[in-house]
Amino acid sequence: MPYVQIQITREGATPAQKAALIQGATELLVKVLNKNPATTFVVIDEVDTDNWGIAGETVTRLRQAAAEGGR
Amino acid sequence: MPYVQIQITREGATPAQKAALIQGATELLVKVLNKNPATTFVVIDEVDTDNWGIAGETVTRLRQAAAEGGR
Amino acid sequence: MPYVQIQITREGATPAQKAALIQGATELLVKVLNKNPATTFVVIDEVDTDNWGIAGETVTRLRQAAAEGGR
Amino acid sequence: MPYVQIQITREGATPAQKAALIQGATELLVKVLNKNPATTFVVIDEVDTDNWGIAGETVTRLRQAAAEGGR
Amino acid sequence: MPYVQIQITREGATPAQKAALIQGATELLVKVLNKNPATTFVVIDEVDTDNWGIAGETVTRLRQAAAEGGR
Amino acid sequence: MPYVQIQITREGATPAQKAALIQGATELLVKVLNKNPATTFVVIDEVDTDNWGIAGETVTRLRQAAAEGGR
Repeated sequence: MPYVQIQITREGATPAQKAALIQGATELLVKVLNKNPATTFVVIDEVDTDNWGIAGETVTRLRQAAAEGGR
Repeated sequence: MPYVQIQITREGATPAQKAALIQGATELLVKVLNKNPATTFVVIDEVDTDNWGIAGETVTRLRQAAAEGGR
Repeated sequence: MPYVQIQITREGATPAQKAALIQGATELLVKVLNKNPATTFVVIDEVDTDNWGIAGETVTRLRQAAAEGGR
Repeated sequence: MPYVQIQITREGATPAQKAALIQGATELLVKVLNKNPATTFVVIDEVDTDNWGIAGETVTRLRQAAAEGGR
Repeated sequence: MPYVQIQITREGATPAQKAALIQGATELLVKVLNKNPATTFVVIDEVDTDNWGIAGETVTRLRQAAAEGGR
Repeated sequence: MPYVQIQITREGATPAQKAALIQGATELLVKVLNKNPATTFVVIDEVDTDNWGIAGETVTRLRQAAAEGGR
């Protein structure tokens, strides 16, 4: 009866991509630990880029810096 | 000083229902473990049905299948 | 298909108390939101008192202060 | 490679305040535990006041009571 | 920069199985969302069977019932 | 009434370091968002290095590789 939480930035994941994450994570638990898929939960949590930080900066700022660097 | 997180699909829980979950979870911690309600937090996390999976499928798809099966 | 996490300090909750928390939280979701108990998960997370802080102090220190104050 | 989750009520935190939380939490992990900021994640989770309870009441209700008390 | 939490009951997952979960979850995020593995975290949380409930019962009790039913 | 979770690998953080994390995180919420420290929770979650992955590998393996590389 596993519970999997997948936390990603909210940057346009489609319903089909979310369905693929859910299917893939469930299959992983079945394959590796022989878990029952019927009681395997997968929850996707999409986080605004203003609300996610790495290396002390928001992802919003990192995306801006990358876009500026690409000019 | 317990912390309770209740994760449900976002399918129309009303403010009154949320208040009942918060009151009930707090009373449970008081009754079972004699916790102080003043420092008991309850947080409700509503998750889109596209973002919740069970048995490898999104709840969106499971709800569609159930609706189709009901015809 | 709710998921409930109950986070408490590790201070001797018994198996019977944990079972009461699990039963009570499940019944709450059934009563308030008509959820299916068969797909309701409850997970209890016990946290060492050195690892839980409130008001900027560890619970370990708060318990010591309370014990000293009680003399 | 720490992961920090900061859960607050959704009551108007600005992008600049969120950036300050992310920077401050990252610096804290560097200062106290000598962690590498490049692999330090900070995620801010803003929760509606209807969905956060303390002392068995929603924050929505507590804010109303405080406003009424202030008259 | 995804963060994945995999919560399972503590029932003897081996280091090799944990490594397989970590590798598989990382590959899933790369394949489905083109995420950078260098900033993909996977955290496995093993929960005692006394602390996990489903259908209002602890997993400890469900395992006992299954063992008794198998006689 | 914020709730902060700090997840780190279990690699010998001392009680004094944990107390510093709790104090620092609480002060951060007070300084940036003017939160009440009396209702600010900080929970530290220490994760075994076998149970934490980055870039598809366990931290246990990354630490071994680093130690071997240092010879």
